[in-house]
Amino acid sequence: MADKKTIYFFRAGKADGKASMKNLLGGKGANIAEMCNLGIPVPSGFTISTEACVYYFKNKKKWPPRLKQELLKNLSRLEKSMGAKLGDREKPLLLSVRSGARASMPGMMDTVLNLGLNDKTLKALIELTGNERFAYDSYRRFINMFGSVVLGIDGSIFEEELTNLKKRVNAENDTDLDAIDLKELCHRYKKTVKSVTGKPFPEDPMKQLIASINAVFGSWNTERAKEYRKMYDIPEEWGTAVNVQSMVFGNAGNNSGTGVAFTRDPSTGEDKFFGEFLVNAQGEDVVAGIRTPLSISGMGKVFPQAAKDLLRISKKLESHYRDMLDLEFTVQDKKLFMLQARVGKRTAASALKIAVDLVNKKKISRREAILRIEPSQLDQLLHKTMNPKAKVNVIATGLPASPGAAVGKVVFTSEAARRLADKGEPAILVRYETSPEDLSGMSASKGILTVHGGMTSHAAVVARGMGKCCISGAGGIKIDERGKTFIVGKTAVHKYDWLTLDGSTGRVILGKTELVSPALSGDFSKIMSWANDMRKLEVRANADTPDDAKLARKFGAQGIGLCRTEHMFFAKERILAVREMILSDSKKERAKALRKLLPMQRKDFGGILKAMDGLPVTIRLLDPPLHEFLPKTKDTISDVAYEMKIHFDEVKKRVDGLAESNPMLGHRGCRLGITFMDIYEMQARAILEATATLKKKGKNPKPEIMIPLVATPKELELCKEMILKTAKEVQKAKGVKFPVTIGTMIELPRAAIIADQIAEHADFFSFGTNDLTQTTLGLSRDDSGTFLPEYVDKKIFRYDPFISIDEEGVGELMKIGVKKGRKAKPKLKIGICGEHGGDPKSVTFCHNLGLNYVSCSPYRIPIAILASARSHQREHKSHTR
Amino acid sequence: MADKKTIYFFRAGKADGKASMKNLLGGKGANIAEMCNLGIPVPSGFTISTEACVYYFKNKKKWPPRLKQELLKNLSRLEKSMGAKLGDREKPLLLSVRSGARASMPGMMDTVLNLGLNDKTLKALIELTGNERFAYDSYRRFINMFGSVVLGIDGSIFEEELTNLKKRVNAENDTDLDAIDLKELCHRYKKTVKSVTGKPFPEDPMKQLIASINAVFGSWNTERAKEYRKMYDIPEEWGTAVNVQSMVFGNAGNNSGTGVAFTRDPSTGEDKFFGEFLVNAQGEDVVAGIRTPLSISGMGKVFPQAAKDLLRISKKLESHYRDMLDLEFTVQDKKLFMLQARVGKRTAASALKIAVDLVNKKKISRREAILRIEPSQLDQLLHKTMNPKAKVNVIATGLPASPGAAVGKVVFTSEAARRLADKGEPAILVRYETSPEDLSGMSASKGILTVHGGMTSHAAVVARGMGKCCISGAGGIKIDERGKTFIVGKTAVHKYDWLTLDGSTGRVILGKTELVSPALSGDFSKIMSWANDMRKLEVRANADTPDDAKLARKFGAQGIGLCRTEHMFFAKERILAVREMILSDSKKERAKALRKLLPMQRKDFGGILKAMDGLPVTIRLLDPPLHEFLPKTKDTISDVAYEMKIHFDEVKKRVDGLAESNPMLGHRGCRLGITFMDIYEMQARAILEATATLKKKGKNPKPEIMIPLVATPKELELCKEMILKTAKEVQKAKGVKFPVTIGTMIELPRAAIIADQIAEHADFFSFGTNDLTQTTLGLSRDDSGTFLPEYVDKKIFRYDPFISIDEEGVGELMKIGVKKGRKAKPKLKIGICGEHGGDPKSVTFCHNLGLNYVSCSPYRIPIAILASARSHQREHKSHTR
Repeated sequence: MADKKTIYFFRAGKADGKASMKNLLGGKGANIAEMCNLGIPVPSGFTISTEACVYYFKNKKKWPPRLKQELLKNLSRLEKSMGAKLGDREKPLLLSVRSGARASMPGMMDTVLNLGLNDKTLKALIELTGNERFAYDSYRRFINMFGSVVLGIDGSIFEEELTNLKKRVNAENDTDLDAIDLKELCHRYKKTVKSVTGKPFPEDPMKQLIASINAVFGSWNTERAKEYRKMYDIPEEWGTAVNVQSMVFGNAGNNSGTGVAFTRDPSTGEDKFFGEFLVNAQGEDVVAGIRTPLSISGMGKVFPQAAKDLLRISKKLESHYRDMLDLEFTVQDKKLFMLQARVGKRTAASALKIAVDLVNKKKISRREAILRIEPSQLDQLLHKTMNPKAKVNVIATGLPASPGAAVGKVVFTSEAARRLADKGEPAILVRYETSPEDLSGMSASKGILTVHGGMTSHAAVVARGMGKCCISGAGGIKIDERGKTFIVGKTAVHKYDWLTLDGSTGRVILGKTELVSPALSGDFSKIMSWANDMRKLEVRANADTPDDAKLARKFGAQGIGLCRTEHMFFAKERILAVREMILSDSKKERAKALRKLLPMQRKDFGGILKAMDGLPVTIRLLDPPLHEFLPKTKDTISDVAYEMKIHFDEVKKRVDGLAESNPMLGHRGCRLGITFMDIYEMQARAILEATATLKKKGKNPKPEIMIPLVATPKELELCKEMILKTAKEVQKAKGVKFPVTIGTMIELPRAAIIADQIAEHADFFSFGTNDLTQTTLGLSRDDSGTFLPEYVDKKIFRYDPFISIDEEGVGELMKIGVKKGRKAKPKLKIGICGEHGGDPKSVTFCHNLGLNYVSCSPYRIPIAILASARSHQREHKSHTR
Repeated sequence: MADKKTIYFFRAGKADGKASMKNLLGGKGANIAEMCNLGIPVPSGFTISTEACVYYFKNKKKWPPRLKQELLKNLSRLEKSMGAKLGDREKPLLLSVRSGARASMPGMMDTVLNLGLNDKTLKALIELTGNERFAYDSYRRFINMFGSVVLGIDGSIFEEELTNLKKRVNAENDTDLDAIDLKELCHRYKKTVKSVTGKPFPEDPMKQLIASINAVFGSWNTERAKEYRKMYDIPEEWGTAVNVQSMVFGNAGNNSGTGVAFTRDPSTGEDKFFGEFLVNAQGEDVVAGIRTPLSISGMGKVFPQAAKDLLRISKKLESHYRDMLDLEFTVQDKKLFMLQARVGKRTAASALKIAVDLVNKKKISRREAILRIEPSQLDQLLHKTMNPKAKVNVIATGLPASPGAAVGKVVFTSEAARRLADKGEPAILVRYETSPEDLSGMSASKGILTVHGGMTSHAAVVARGMGKCCISGAGGIKIDERGKTFIVGKTAVHKYDWLTLDGSTGRVILGKTELVSPALSGDFSKIMSWANDMRKLEVRANADTPDDAKLARKFGAQGIGLCRTEHMFFAKERILAVREMILSDSKKERAKALRKLLPMQRKDFGGILKAMDGLPVTIRLLDPPLHEFLPKTKDTISDVAYEMKIHFDEVKKRVDGLAESNPMLGHRGCRLGITFMDIYEMQARAILEATATLKKKGKNPKPEIMIPLVATPKELELCKEMILKTAKEVQKAKGVKFPVTIGTMIELPRAAIIADQIAEHADFFSFGTNDLTQTTLGLSRDDSGTFLPEYVDKKIFRYDPFISIDEEGVGELMKIGVKKGRKAKPKLKIGICGEHGGDPKSVTFCHNLGLNYVSCSPYRIPIAILASARSHQREHKSHTR
């Protein structure tokens, strides 16, 4: 370090640094250097490297040996280049001191402007510019910034002084203050500094500079900066660079101004220069929103030359960076200076358009195009959304459980939802939570709002599957079902009142709101087809019906990764037979019910296998605890009693006997298969018979039978034995042969830990990360709504573990599972079929883990495809951000 | 193998083998050799080694090359030694062929007696003995055994023939059959053999011998033998030895007989020869229990010399083996022959007495004494038990959830139990399951019977803690609460009917049964004191009250490993304040309730810390989901409403709002502490203030505050921060200093996986293996009753994972936890406080894992102490059995 260059000089036309030196110069410093090298007008200055900052913190806040000397050298170079001197009484050099880390940390780090001002240089500035108001305006800004950033004075004290002054002189805006007012303000600010710190405001510009540099270094290690870095995985050891630049003044009168711009429209991606600016202002005024800025298109009228220059520079920069840029600029006395250029944030639609456009112009490769689009953004494109300009009355906030927006009339029961739908009216179903009995009601509603439950509660999962808007865990709501009302805060919402749900943000909005329909442009399908060519990880869909399967195929699914057989059980004409099956007291009674169900299930599976002809369809045998299917009302119990020819009380007793304290950990999954092997046998038979029939018709069905909740190899072994025996019978009876693929979910920690033993009996693994998350973290997805938001707020979990795989915990178990599974069976096919399969971060994790496929709800398939392509393309960089 | 000796000869006075050659000769063969070497009369013979058996199975059931030749050689040696020849028409040699594996596999393996008989040798036998009846009796036994064991004929066919014959001739016992009857029976048996196998009964004795040897080899690989070995971890590759021995005949008339004996009384351990015998019988008759055997003390009257010899030999063998032995013998023509000697099974009391006695006699060391006592047996000594001779009517069987036996009158509610107890009458509480609201009712009952729930259901855990008998998961029972009746099969049991529970076996018995009180003899405390000197692992108790703590200390606990603060919440005078605390809607409301609870908790903790003065007391902050404490009845809700001055409906709504689908995975443990930090703060304050007060009184309280359900380091960090802050306040206010120890439960898979991160904030870890088992296996202990018994039956789990740690799954996570925890903090104290802490197998596992302590319910402390000592003493052998 001692021998290394610590400061990099720049001036228009020439810089020591360049864009690729981000690690050393920070993002801002590197881009400034790049602009200089391109001959773009940038106020001259120099960048103190991030390494200096690192040294500073490693050595008890001492500077690296060469820094002071280099500072003096570069300062004198700057003074020469500007023809002005720091602290000079005739031509004083004024400086800005800005932070600039490798990664953008917006709002986290500090800046000092107008440095170098004191009572003497102020006079020189007045004389030099003849603009007393400008000089005092700059001075008061400097004292304020230096006071709060460097001296640590509470900024609100300065604000209060300003407010008081404005009241006294009856000024509405800051610009209404004249030179005398501002002079008084400077006086008061300096008094404040003295009274708070016990020392006068430092007049020595060199001391001001050194203190400001240290303050910028220091801002790297504030608590909020640390928190921010933790949140975004930015390493502590990166440090920040410091950019010291000669000031240009947007507030030097009506020939000056400042603004921000985008090289294209960031919301549409249209190739149209876009931005806004303020006359006679410094940068902070634009951000603060005190005055309404003017559109960039009007800039030509005010500063014709500067506007022309800006447009030219904008085109040059976009072409050079090969991307849409976000620019900051200042005009001083009609002359344009560029202050910052960086890749700009954009909407999903815009991102697609820009990427395709740049590929068409051969500016970037398809690979680059893919890497520039954030997969999670695509969600915006797949659902109806709220008009962002609509004024809304948000009465509650829940979890954004299923994206899109919905408008409808409040109902509290599935029946009411169906009745409204029958009349062609939109319904919003509001419940404490939903159960499988609500499926038809959910399907009839435009949106679902639940008080309990997390991102993967029943309501959330089903809604996402249906592509329907859902807000879950809106804990503030209290439902009074009898009163047909829900209450939140002081608002009471009655049955049939209009309600809007914004499933993308979790906002519950009173009244009707305008919605915007999605338009999947050609850009979308172009990007998807590129992504398809560039990935390794397969993408499958979670789908339970032939319709879902078709939709999934349309979205590009390469198979079904999870078909939940039990979702077929709720149809009205079936549930009775299902209930008979469950409530049977003997194998014989049960056999009767199973005989009724067999043809129905055979038809279900036939339909899905046909829709996915030629592609694998993973069918999971019965998983949920049986009581989910049970009759709960008197009427439904009576129906069952009648059908089974037993007494009502007996049915009721059997229903009660099946209740469980923790159904998630109860008698479910393959445990049902072990104790009621005839149920699993019926399902296996239905799958195998449907397969045989399709085979005979010349189709190519590819079922994969999946056993859920396996904890021991023996469970899988017993189920497999039964399936193979059934397959033999079916193949013999139908006179057709086909291979039988049998695998298992890995969804319990134990299964991951003994994956080697389990792999010996499995043709494939599928990680059930919903359940694996629940068990690994001991966290019920349905009950976590009461505390999980607070947990995420307090950064106890960095991400909601039901949305992004908890990599340290659940992910570690997956690693163990993959390692042990492949050790026992090197070519074992491994996928994931939890909700995480549609989360880009989790898709990347799965890619890096070497899985063969991810599976997600149809509406998330494009996201998974893109995430998968990106993961593959940046493989070697996968552990950095 | 080809060059190795395959057969080992033995005769009284001299044998090729000895006791230490068990691996080669099997248990029986080695002990026979040892007896021969001691000059004890044993019928001569030879042992075919286990290696021959292993070769046989490895080589498609071919014999090792030398075996045939050695067989002929040893047979001829035997013939010489006996002065008889196999198949000889004058002096025929008759043989027994018995299996004998390394480990005892009772009832698993096959035996053939009286081999060598055929129509010709039969005649010789008649002539030689002049006892026609004896000869035919031997012959029919031989045909029967050979037919079923070697030829694979269903044994019941022979039995049926015998029964029919007995009916025909009006015989009650086998001994009532005369020579003519038996002759006919032989004839019929031979016909049966021919009709079933299609071949006549083999007359060639050499063929009989070879076929019998192969049959004994084959019995090693029957399905039931394989299952047995799997269950008891006996390796497949051990194989069995075959003992071929000249026959001696206990059925040779009234001067002959056969019997079994113990060198001491196996139920008391008293140094008193013990056994029984039958005159004129072969060994199988004793086992079959057809005739009532005579006590060994009467043997002197019948066979004076043989009885004297037996007593002498018994003493000699016990002295030689230095242990109580189980002997088999036969008397033929008044002469005694020993057939088997092995270490005998014994009751707990007997095991203690024998061990202490042998140590006193300097026959064995204290270490040996400890290693000879099975810890789980001690349970028998700590509780009342059923008189084993009582005739009982078992109406149902459940899980043996808490040992001991209880007699009382059936009640169905806690109130009824209390009412009975108030009248001084014994109650048996029968429920579907118990909840914390039943505590007082359980405490008032003699025993608890539940229909649902497993070995660690609420009922089971609480009952074990109370040292009270409990049977859980008696699934066959249906309770009709309104009818005040329960029904099981065809039996209806009404309120106040007498019922007996045998908590040690799970038997539910109709009516009153006599119980036997435990008597902890001096032997018990002697063994315990030796065990205490010989162990490394500390033993602590799970105790929630000062009384429990005192009891634990009496039993030898070295501290409290788990004090569940919430168990103090149910007392009548507290529950109201607890409910207020939970149902508060604001911090202010809650503060009011907490102020009421603080002094109560302070008193609780003060009492326990005082009782355990000088020993560590691990206090777990609030763990269960809040709704466990909630009022459920109208009355109790009204009480809360009155106290809180809010409306009944509002209370009801808040109660409903707290319901959870899977409370085990819900808002509980430190999640409560994070969201309601004021509750944890109250508890921490109570502990710290109680500590301060005791400190000031010169006591030495050692609290260790434990945070439950931690999944992330941040949770522990936040709780710790609060506790340390509170400690500072308390220490300052009270003017006394003491160290504050803060640790965490490791009871979630995630916690084990990131134990290194958690260890950084923890002074200690305590594995909560109940919850860790539930989450690792995805198995709710309360709901597993419906399928877990079937799972254990089907060997899906080798042991109930709630009783013995699932070593492959949960144990693996514990290993990870210990490894990572100690990596971050090498001296980290680690214990276990799940129910497994009292299970000997699990204690051994914990010892091998290098834990510092186990903690268990007070009544299991002696078991844990003994298990801990044994683990330490046999450390180097810990992975074999």
